[in-house]
Amino acid sequence: MAYFDNISKIKFDGAKSKDPLAFKFYNPEEKINGKTMEETLKFGVAYWHTFMEDLSDPFGVGTAQRPWDKFSDPMDKAKARVDASFEFFDKLGIPYFCFHDFDIAPEGSNLKETLANQDVIVDMMEDYLKDSKVKLLWNTVNNFTNPMFVHGASTSNNADVFAYAAAKVKKGLEVGKRLGSESYVFWGGREGYESLLNTNMGLELDNLARFFHMANDYAKEIGFDAQFLIEPKPKEPTTHQYDFDVAHGFAFLQKYNLQDVFKFNIEANHATLAGHSFEHELHYARINGMLGSVDANQGHPQLGWDTDEFPSDLYATTLAMYEILKNGGLEKGGLNFDAKVRRTSFKPEDLFKAHIVGMDSFALGAKVAQRMIDDKALDSLVEKRYSSFSEGIGKDIVDGNTDFKKLQDYALTLDKVENESGNVEVIKSILNQYLVTTIADA
Amino acid sequence: MAYFDNISKIKFDGAKSKDPLAFKFYNPEEKINGKTMEETLKFGVAYWHTFMEDLSDPFGVGTAQRPWDKFSDPMDKAKARVDASFEFFDKLGIPYFCFHDFDIAPEGSNLKETLANQDVIVDMMEDYLKDSKVKLLWNTVNNFTNPMFVHGASTSNNADVFAYAAAKVKKGLEVGKRLGSESYVFWGGREGYESLLNTNMGLELDNLARFFHMANDYAKEIGFDAQFLIEPKPKEPTTHQYDFDVAHGFAFLQKYNLQDVFKFNIEANHATLAGHSFEHELHYARINGMLGSVDANQGHPQLGWDTDEFPSDLYATTLAMYEILKNGGLEKGGLNFDAKVRRTSFKPEDLFKAHIVGMDSFALGAKVAQRMIDDKALDSLVEKRYSSFSEGIGKDIVDGNTDFKKLQDYALTLDKVENESGNVEVIKSILNQYLVTTIADA
Amino acid sequence: MAYFDNISKIKFDGAKSKDPLAFKFYNPEEKINGKTMEETLKFGVAYWHTFMEDLSDPFGVGTAQRPWDKFSDPMDKAKARVDASFEFFDKLGIPYFCFHDFDIAPEGSNLKETLANQDVIVDMMEDYLKDSKVKLLWNTVNNFTNPMFVHGASTSNNADVFAYAAAKVKKGLEVGKRLGSESYVFWGGREGYESLLNTNMGLELDNLARFFHMANDYAKEIGFDAQFLIEPKPKEPTTHQYDFDVAHGFAFLQKYNLQDVFKFNIEANHATLAGHSFEHELHYARINGMLGSVDANQGHPQLGWDTDEFPSDLYATTLAMYEILKNGGLEKGGLNFDAKVRRTSFKPEDLFKAHIVGMDSFALGAKVAQRMIDDKALDSLVEKRYSSFSEGIGKDIVDGNTDFKKLQDYALTLDKVENESGNVEVIKSILNQYLVTTIADA
Amino acid sequence: MAYFDNISKIKFDGAKSKDPLAFKFYNPEEKINGKTMEETLKFGVAYWHTFMEDLSDPFGVGTAQRPWDKFSDPMDKAKARVDASFEFFDKLGIPYFCFHDFDIAPEGSNLKETLANQDVIVDMMEDYLKDSKVKLLWNTVNNFTNPMFVHGASTSNNADVFAYAAAKVKKGLEVGKRLGSESYVFWGGREGYESLLNTNMGLELDNLARFFHMANDYAKEIGFDAQFLIEPKPKEPTTHQYDFDVAHGFAFLQKYNLQDVFKFNIEANHATLAGHSFEHELHYARINGMLGSVDANQGHPQLGWDTDEFPSDLYATTLAMYEILKNGGLEKGGLNFDAKVRRTSFKPEDLFKAHIVGMDSFALGAKVAQRMIDDKALDSLVEKRYSSFSEGIGKDIVDGNTDFKKLQDYALTLDKVENESGNVEVIKSILNQYLVTTIADA
Repeated sequence: MAYFDNISKIKFDGAKSKDPLAFKFYNPEEKINGKTMEETLKFGVAYWHTFMEDLSDPFGVGTAQRPWDKFSDPMDKAKARVDASFEFFDKLGIPYFCFHDFDIAPEGSNLKETLANQDVIVDMMEDYLKDSKVKLLWNTVNNFTNPMFVHGASTSNNADVFAYAAAKVKKGLEVGKRLGSESYVFWGGREGYESLLNTNMGLELDNLARFFHMANDYAKEIGFDAQFLIEPKPKEPTTHQYDFDVAHGFAFLQKYNLQDVFKFNIEANHATLAGHSFEHELHYARINGMLGSVDANQGHPQLGWDTDEFPSDLYATTLAMYEILKNGGLEKGGLNFDAKVRRTSFKPEDLFKAHIVGMDSFALGAKVAQRMIDDKALDSLVEKRYSSFSEGIGKDIVDGNTDFKKLQDYALTLDKVENESGNVEVIKSILNQYLVTTIADA
Repeated sequence: MAYFDNISKIKFDGAKSKDPLAFKFYNPEEKINGKTMEETLKFGVAYWHTFMEDLSDPFGVGTAQRPWDKFSDPMDKAKARVDASFEFFDKLGIPYFCFHDFDIAPEGSNLKETLANQDVIVDMMEDYLKDSKVKLLWNTVNNFTNPMFVHGASTSNNADVFAYAAAKVKKGLEVGKRLGSESYVFWGGREGYESLLNTNMGLELDNLARFFHMANDYAKEIGFDAQFLIEPKPKEPTTHQYDFDVAHGFAFLQKYNLQDVFKFNIEANHATLAGHSFEHELHYARINGMLGSVDANQGHPQLGWDTDEFPSDLYATTLAMYEILKNGGLEKGGLNFDAKVRRTSFKPEDLFKAHIVGMDSFALGAKVAQRMIDDKALDSLVEKRYSSFSEGIGKDIVDGNTDFKKLQDYALTLDKVENESGNVEVIKSILNQYLVTTIADA
Repeated sequence: MAYFDNISKIKFDGAKSKDPLAFKFYNPEEKINGKTMEETLKFGVAYWHTFMEDLSDPFGVGTAQRPWDKFSDPMDKAKARVDASFEFFDKLGIPYFCFHDFDIAPEGSNLKETLANQDVIVDMMEDYLKDSKVKLLWNTVNNFTNPMFVHGASTSNNADVFAYAAAKVKKGLEVGKRLGSESYVFWGGREGYESLLNTNMGLELDNLARFFHMANDYAKEIGFDAQFLIEPKPKEPTTHQYDFDVAHGFAFLQKYNLQDVFKFNIEANHATLAGHSFEHELHYARINGMLGSVDANQGHPQLGWDTDEFPSDLYATTLAMYEILKNGGLEKGGLNFDAKVRRTSFKPEDLFKAHIVGMDSFALGAKVAQRMIDDKALDSLVEKRYSSFSEGIGKDIVDGNTDFKKLQDYALTLDKVENESGNVEVIKSILNQYLVTTIADA
Repeated sequence: MAYFDNISKIKFDGAKSKDPLAFKFYNPEEKINGKTMEETLKFGVAYWHTFMEDLSDPFGVGTAQRPWDKFSDPMDKAKARVDASFEFFDKLGIPYFCFHDFDIAPEGSNLKETLANQDVIVDMMEDYLKDSKVKLLWNTVNNFTNPMFVHGASTSNNADVFAYAAAKVKKGLEVGKRLGSESYVFWGGREGYESLLNTNMGLELDNLARFFHMANDYAKEIGFDAQFLIEPKPKEPTTHQYDFDVAHGFAFLQKYNLQDVFKFNIEANHATLAGHSFEHELHYARINGMLGSVDANQGHPQLGWDTDEFPSDLYATTLAMYEILKNGGLEKGGLNFDAKVRRTSFKPEDLFKAHIVGMDSFALGAKVAQRMIDDKALDSLVEKRYSSFSEGIGKDIVDGNTDFKKLQDYALTLDKVENESGNVEVIKSILNQYLVTTIADA
């Protein structure tokens, strides 16, 4: 345990702490609606951003200063990362993590070696997990980085690539089972197209469905009962990604009879790239029974790509937690920080500082959201607004006791139709009040 | 027939004509794949943009100079518009038109009077249609302009508004039947939300589905066999519109078991506002058997709202026609010019000139697309690209004769996976060649 | 005083007030850095949005319920609006207002009548202003609504329109002088192009500069010493507006030697439509000595047009006030609510409620910003970050005591260049802390 | 000469050629307005995209198959690239190229070694240039990739970095002089900010100006008379880049008295990311005398980042050439293909195919544009449109012979102001006609 020597265990220090290495709002033992923050929020570290990311961008090489970079052999470095990660989890006090296959173990010179490399690291992780409070939130495989996947993985035009992708997911399911993963994620980084003009979209979507059915069959066969999750993203790296947003995924799952097998892993930055608010995607998934897990990050409102920033916008975290708490939590999902430090935040301690910002922002969001729920601050407005559907013609509509003829007869009797103000400005004021007074009252 | 005195019947004058009141590429009798252009393209005039639009915008009053504005009584003006419209259809030589209820007849002081006003105009139109080649492509009702619909129509929080909307659609279906409409469109201009925070989206979507089922029941009851069409739009006027894009609509229709009742009416500008290309939306609808009709217009790449420009981009018209021709045409749908002249094109003759641009652009697009299809210019590339799924492991995948274990076994035998270039740049060059040589060869 | 009978004078009621007709954070007498909130914030009502706006949108007629709509004669209605406005200013306790010529008086059948109509209302306003604490923050003329301005006003292709626009601005300057306006605004709603292809941009920009010089000459001639302000906007209604953003305006002003005559009136929603943050535009103007006034509103992050919402985002108001306070205030400018209630907020009392949200949001932003300034919460970080320019080679650079040869000699001596983390995540956390604790400490 | 064995010299083969390795429209000897296409278009290869790009993206490693990758020693590889590049230039028949310092020679372990590495390659290039028709269009230095530049180069908060950047540009100017470069480009990839909150923008912009003045001084000192060019880009990798667009650059240059030293290098994809059309940026630069050179590429309308695609959109190339031809060409500038093959086009021959598409697209654009100029297809419309400024009150305005009082007197005499249609739809039709008939007539 020697990777973050200068960092002590992160502690809660209150809303006015000036210590960038202390929590201001996240107090793991503090209760929200009867459950501890730790249980409610189920924070997870994204292994790739925290232990693999070198902070390169398309215009510059990596800036990250990482203690495990002293190793040059890939397997040595992989092992160092495991050691460092569990030190990190412990010092940060975070209960979950998530990874892709190639985050934890380097790709070998062939598939067999690749799978063997993973076994070495999975053994090591299994040992760590035995003695740790930390759990695996979800795992997945990276079927997008290797040049082989240039035209897609399960939607490649090349059947060999489909087979290779399947081989890797098979292993991913086995690894998930061994490590007790609560969920399993599919993010189809290359499952889309560069140009519609050279693409057989019909075949590709059929193949994607075939792939998912086979994955489900194999998970059942080995008794891996993780929640399957699709992670929508509209574009990047592809021009159009098939899992564009939750609705695209939901249309696909219904068409191919997979809607009972999957839920969605919703990422804030992917939502905004698709033209939606984060809370919209969460809400839409929730009312369709499809809210599975969350990739907790944020985009930049002036930038058109996935910036994967650590979440800090308290409006976004409050409204996200509002949906999550209304969902009764996330069951087998959690709040995975699919977020990377800025390229200008390249010091090892920035990894801690950034996670603290994210955890504090969601913790505060959860407190604010729970108070709004407890007070029925919005619910009372909404209930009143729709009360006309609880009686009379409204009840007939909802109960299926009417038709166009009856409705026209009714409408012909109406002298005037009266509406009430939607009160949108007032609602924003209420949200602001909760935001700035919650801490004062705590 | 005195509304467009200075305009003669529009004629085809060839690719180099300098007459803005002549067709350059649209030659109605010219055949494309065995059918005349007129039959293939099924162009329609949007009654609202052409006969109702005053060219106001949020920053300025109307600029349009329209001959029927000499009438001040609303019913007189409505009748003048009918006369003018059939003169316009005839002089332009366009075979279809489309309207909302309030385009053709003014709203009365109550529902009864509103319905009566429509009857007067529908009688008049029925007479015109008897003696004309022109047909009604689709009709719809405007359930978004009246202040009553401020919170939605079939998704209003107010049950009276739902009833009122139903009453109007009932009439719309009856009018459609009387006038022999080929399709019937639902564009839910206010079916969405201003703010998620005061919205019961679950109830609203359920009600939307109830409304559609009742509409279908009534259409069946009266024997109106038009194709029902949903027209997706992502936003504007609402912040989020439930029929965001084709995929959102498809998810909704499947959930509520309406997928056999509806197809989609796809508008170019709505596609781009949703973050898709026009051809993407057409293609996605096509491969799901849901391509119904097209609102032929275009947006502006630098503007973030619905500009409803007359289509002129030959790339867009070519790729749209490529999808439509591959679909075997549009059956009960057509190419409705949901497009308005610019506010700076305010003269009556601009209405003709703009339609000519749109018709020419789609006519040329159709010629180019048909040549590419005939030559298999793209198809041969695509077929070759996916050939691995016609044999061996690829065929097993497609035929359902494999699973993750067999696929892993296969993948372990692969020495190297080889891919071919996707040739995207070359494909663009081919498209350009077809674009600039088609006329030369004609 | 009979227009808002059911509204009493709005009072400060504290952060937890549940009264939508009370201030939660704006306490006019409370001091921020030695000046009252009222003096610091200089809030203004936008006459057009509050007294003229009918809440129509491109897809629906107006929903606004306004007490002065009982009058039908335009001049009667205009007078009623003046009465209502001063009742509104008084009940809201807001110290400023702003208007366009056509907001206060209807256009006549010719220019002479138009100017005469204005005189009637200006007389009336002059009387009101004598006995009121309220002042005119700025006036302007509307040279964009009338169809005459379809191709622009001072950038029209039609010289008569240029003359007409000049005639109106001449009157506007006279009206501003009579009513003691602190500033005078130019927003060129049609000063741009629909299509580059029919536009002589060079001539149009030269003419715009000629127009501004003549306006300045005339203001000097009549002794009107208001601050001239350009209000940038990138687009809408035009495709490209010449005053795209502050930088475009600054380039223009320098080229035509007008940089000492004008400052900028910066609107939040215009900033974001131009691809900038609100604070960016304020900051850029500030460091160039060009920050004049602010149109306080906000856009919607998912919408691509000018939504002119009442400001409620506390991040935006805090960072805006941070710039304004660092600027030493706005001198002859202020915070004008160029904002309209949502179309769904159509009741008269919504006008009060929405202004309250805006005033509260900026009041709270000001308090948070002042605390950050007092504590040097960000300044200390920034000063440290740039300290290398206070000594050694950095000082030589700033003092102009070096050149490329010396710098290369110096660089050749450097073993390694060390950088520090930019601490972006930590800075966001600090901002959050100030946001949620300021009220608790008050 | 053994890097592209399977490629022969690319030849012109006519508009219908099916050979992806032949020109369809670019015929170097063909004359446009009296000059050969080769002289008019001045095409250049971007060394970085063609010889350095590995086709990695943020989600995947490189896919590029490049013959020089057989070398592992960086200097050996650099030399191989020089050999390959001149083979490439020759086979493609392209007259210019452009590079950054680190494209041609690897960075050494210290500055001295870095500069020495460059000398080796520059010697080699000098030899090649002696015997070749190929010339250096422009060079520049890469002051953005190295982690040192994480906070900027000439706008870094670290004075050592400023010095280092200066040292590199000094060398760049010397290299440019030795190789006879026609222009010298400054693209400030990191000259902007990640967050406004930790940035001293005032100091950074002052330093940027100091840097430019020193560069200019040194270029004069060594007698390097290249045209200095600023390449605007709005964002990416930074959140806000100081040279956001041409107008931002123009405002900056005027403020710091650099407007006579610089012109602009305008990139299509940067223009669209800034919210402008490509032709807008060219036009704006042209009318201000600041159009220097062009980075010929294109973006993707659905993607929010710099895709740097090879230009293929004939509307864009036509309208770009329209501006360039009206500018009388680009003097010391040219059309540099700042474009990369798609990640899916990874074969060596794709480099040729993609350049061919770009050259053909601009060649055709030039032919179409020249015909429109020759025919005054648009100019005649524009001249007529603005004719009111050639006489009467319009002439007075342009000549400075009027003022607001005279203009108001004049306006008061106007009965009605009449405008003409802007004919935007017709203009688009004319453009389409030229596009699709130019080849037929050739």
